[in-house]
Amino acid sequence: MPDILHRVGIKSSPNEAYKALTAIDGLADWWTNDTHGQSKVGEVIRFRFGDNGGFDMKVLELDPGKRVLWQVVDGPAEWIGTKISFDLRREDDFTVVLFKHQGWAEPVEFMHHCSTKWATFLMSLKSLIETGKGAPYPDDVIVDRQWR
Amino acid sequence: MPDILHRVGIKSSPNEAYKALTAIDGLADWWTNDTHGQSKVGEVIRFRFGDNGGFDMKVLELDPGKRVLWQVVDGPAEWIGTKISFDLRREDDFTVVLFKHQGWAEPVEFMHHCSTKWATFLMSLKSLIETGKGAPYPDDVIVDRQWR
Repeated sequence: MPDILHRVGIKSSPNEAYKALTAIDGLADWWTNDTHGQSKVGEVIRFRFGDNGGFDMKVLELDPGKRVLWQVVDGPAEWIGTKISFDLRREDDFTVVLFKHQGWAEPVEFMHHCSTKWATFLMSLKSLIETGKGAPYPDDVIVDRQWR
Repeated sequence: MPDILHRVGIKSSPNEAYKALTAIDGLADWWTNDTHGQSKVGEVIRFRFGDNGGFDMKVLELDPGKRVLWQVVDGPAEWIGTKISFDLRREDDFTVVLFKHQGWAEPVEFMHHCSTKWATFLMSLKSLIETGKGAPYPDDVIVDRQWR
């Protein structure tokens, strides 16, 4: 099955990156400002993007400073059941973030879009941590017309 | 085998996008300013990124306004033999660009990096066409420390 894979290097500690990937207000500052729920294993985080809908993520794993794993429990049909992971590793004064969005049934056109859009959101995460300012929805980078 | 897939929507005609993907000075304005060679089927285009090396692409297909297909004939070991395609489609006053970089043997960490970096270069292509200014090397978006 095809996967979406990305990698960014962030000038920060793994703990700082982990916080932005797990605190609700951290997630709100790089992905979507409409983020609610509980970032605890077994609980659900709700990410909303206005008229574009959103995603409900069940938190499957939280390993402080090292790894975050979610499973999509509600959202676009193509996303339901897929898994999203962030693995963190320190390299000197940088943190390498390896991102995977796995479990897509088919490499549909929407998956191509989501791959590009994930890259822009990971750059938003990097910017948030390095400069204090991310580009979360509704101030996100627009990559196309149809799916924003 | 894992693929890198992306999609951007550009406010332009397919012919304008095709030109930026085939003219040597078009490629130089969004990917790397050190682009040389011949953009003809059977010929090779050389893309260089200073100390970071570069890629030699053999042009396999050119379908004006519709499709570009290259094969990597020199560059990083993981890239050699892989294929890169751009498929263009008009939607009203937009052009949808479907991008695929296929033939990776393994989903290595470098592939994660290249996926993110391709997204930033496709956004550079979009910006070039929509605003007249792209972000080609050496003014490219830096996504990490190790591989730029």
